[in-house]
Amino acid sequence: MSRFLSTVAKRTEPYVPGEQLNQPDIIKLNTNENPYPPSPKVLAAIQKALDDNSLQRYPSPTADPLRHAIADTYGLTKEQVFVGNGSDEVLAFSFMAFFEPGKTIKFPEISYSFYPVYSKIFNIPFEKVPLNEDFTLPMENFFQSDGGVILPNPNAPTSIYADLDVIEGILQQNRDQVVVIDEAYIDFAGPSAIKLIDRYDNLLVIQTTSKSRALAGLRVGFALGQPELIEGLTRIKDSFNSYTVDRLAMAGATAAFQDHAYFSESTKKIIRTRERCVQSLIEMGFDVVPSDANFLFAKPANLDALVLYEQLKERGILVRHFDQEGINNYLRITIGTDEQMEVLVEALKQLIK
Amino acid sequence: MSRFLSTVAKRTEPYVPGEQLNQPDIIKLNTNENPYPPSPKVLAAIQKALDDNSLQRYPSPTADPLRHAIADTYGLTKEQVFVGNGSDEVLAFSFMAFFEPGKTIKFPEISYSFYPVYSKIFNIPFEKVPLNEDFTLPMENFFQSDGGVILPNPNAPTSIYADLDVIEGILQQNRDQVVVIDEAYIDFAGPSAIKLIDRYDNLLVIQTTSKSRALAGLRVGFALGQPELIEGLTRIKDSFNSYTVDRLAMAGATAAFQDHAYFSESTKKIIRTRERCVQSLIEMGFDVVPSDANFLFAKPANLDALVLYEQLKERGILVRHFDQEGINNYLRITIGTDEQMEVLVEALKQLIK
Repeated sequence: MSRFLSTVAKRTEPYVPGEQLNQPDIIKLNTNENPYPPSPKVLAAIQKALDDNSLQRYPSPTADPLRHAIADTYGLTKEQVFVGNGSDEVLAFSFMAFFEPGKTIKFPEISYSFYPVYSKIFNIPFEKVPLNEDFTLPMENFFQSDGGVILPNPNAPTSIYADLDVIEGILQQNRDQVVVIDEAYIDFAGPSAIKLIDRYDNLLVIQTTSKSRALAGLRVGFALGQPELIEGLTRIKDSFNSYTVDRLAMAGATAAFQDHAYFSESTKKIIRTRERCVQSLIEMGFDVVPSDANFLFAKPANLDALVLYEQLKERGILVRHFDQEGINNYLRITIGTDEQMEVLVEALKQLIK
Repeated sequence: MSRFLSTVAKRTEPYVPGEQLNQPDIIKLNTNENPYPPSPKVLAAIQKALDDNSLQRYPSPTADPLRHAIADTYGLTKEQVFVGNGSDEVLAFSFMAFFEPGKTIKFPEISYSFYPVYSKIFNIPFEKVPLNEDFTLPMENFFQSDGGVILPNPNAPTSIYADLDVIEGILQQNRDQVVVIDEAYIDFAGPSAIKLIDRYDNLLVIQTTSKSRALAGLRVGFALGQPELIEGLTRIKDSFNSYTVDRLAMAGATAAFQDHAYFSESTKKIIRTRERCVQSLIEMGFDVVPSDANFLFAKPANLDALVLYEQLKERGILVRHFDQEGINNYLRITIGTDEQMEVLVEALKQLIK
């Protein structure tokens, strides 16, 4: 490690994303990407922005057209929408804007593994709240946090969705702290906490275009909340990087929110594939957590999950395994196309027999 | 201000970028963009990435092809190259990685106004080193910093380039601190400090594709230094956002570094226009700072600079005025096309007579 590193840089323990292999023949079910391309209207909008021949000009620092498109989608105003360079950036800005060194925040023990990374880099103490045995959220244990709460809904990598009365309970019992609901997978689940924004000034909802909107390659995430929280995020953004969303990403993401029919159809298709795949895995003896996401969290009956992960990889199928106590017997499997899931199921049948 | 803001968010005083008006009829000379579009090869590379139809996939988190292209351009290795979402992000990561709360850094009093913003948000104390009367750098006053040095070369908004022996002097007298040379405008000036990287493990050079490479709209900046410093930046990046450069920006920026002929030609064209414009302004009685950038820093003879800024704006010509002591009699004028500069010169002739 360089002798020049700051205390912050020394302290941090970087996040390790899923492998991003660029082998065209691999079946990539490890980073919860959408198996379908974005809407043709998205591609047309990017094409138009490219043909505008204005890449030499900075993008809009306020990203108004994109914020309008998101606001219109969710019945909000532009002032209730913040956009950033992927939801990871929006999460990082949220840690900076709303969480405080010295005040302990709470998040689930089994959850998005970037949360402890943000906590360490920004020096926020944290308490990992153990989940119930069935991976559901023990609502009361998120009450009366000292510094705030952050949790994914549906949770990752467990795929479990918590009903809005659970979220509302947590909001009510943290009136003076910000509660961040990280809804990366919400479009594959039940209702969003967005409908609670009007009633809770402490609620920040974060979503992404990387999953249901099929734009992982463009890097656009967003946060929704009352205007004062959005202003707080904007203060951080404008102290960090004036222009976080580039011209082509702005054009593509805006179009993605304007083509509701395509979004709705491809999301439904993924859900149908998920349900079929769940059945196949259960028939093979897997213990499958009830999924409300675009991935499954499944435990093989009599096999080591890590061994199975390696065996699948040898056959060109990439899933994700977490070397973490309590979940190291599970595989996280992204829902691909029907064809991809059939290949997976066939491979599993051979491997577990 | 929201009651939920963290100390960090309350403390910060956000940077205000130049106005980004999207009126096609305006002559926009206020944010030092390139007046020419990027190379046709850049557009072709983006087109190819778009036609690949893989926007649903995350980009490479390590950005290898782009880092290779930059390394090849400058005779470095990939391990000496870091890329980010615009050089502002790279600067922010550098403050986090190499500067320390409690240790005072130095930067020029008249300089890029984002430096004090980063300092405040990351709680780094700073000393603003006054420039000489003619805006040149008083080298010795940057010696023996407590926490490090950051300075733009050429400086902004003064447009003055410091010879490499000045940079080397500062590096030699800060052996145990990182010296960041922010070379956003270097391609319009003399040699880059890149040639010092092999000899100074405390040197980080930051550049951007937003100026000479005509890609402000894509958001790609980069840092060059010895591998240990690059590793330090990567630690921060991977604790903040796994994928900061999107697929289309990656493709476009890579192609920009591969088309050296186009870059060289358009850079020379801007320098020729600059020299012509300097002559015209001097003939009109402006005090023009000798420029090694793609902008001029010029003081009108008997007129208030702010008034002139407003009058130009009324005529559809946007330049930049800084309301800061010592420079509030100056205008910063980006070099546009020959035609744009002729319109500017004509307008000035009418306004100052």
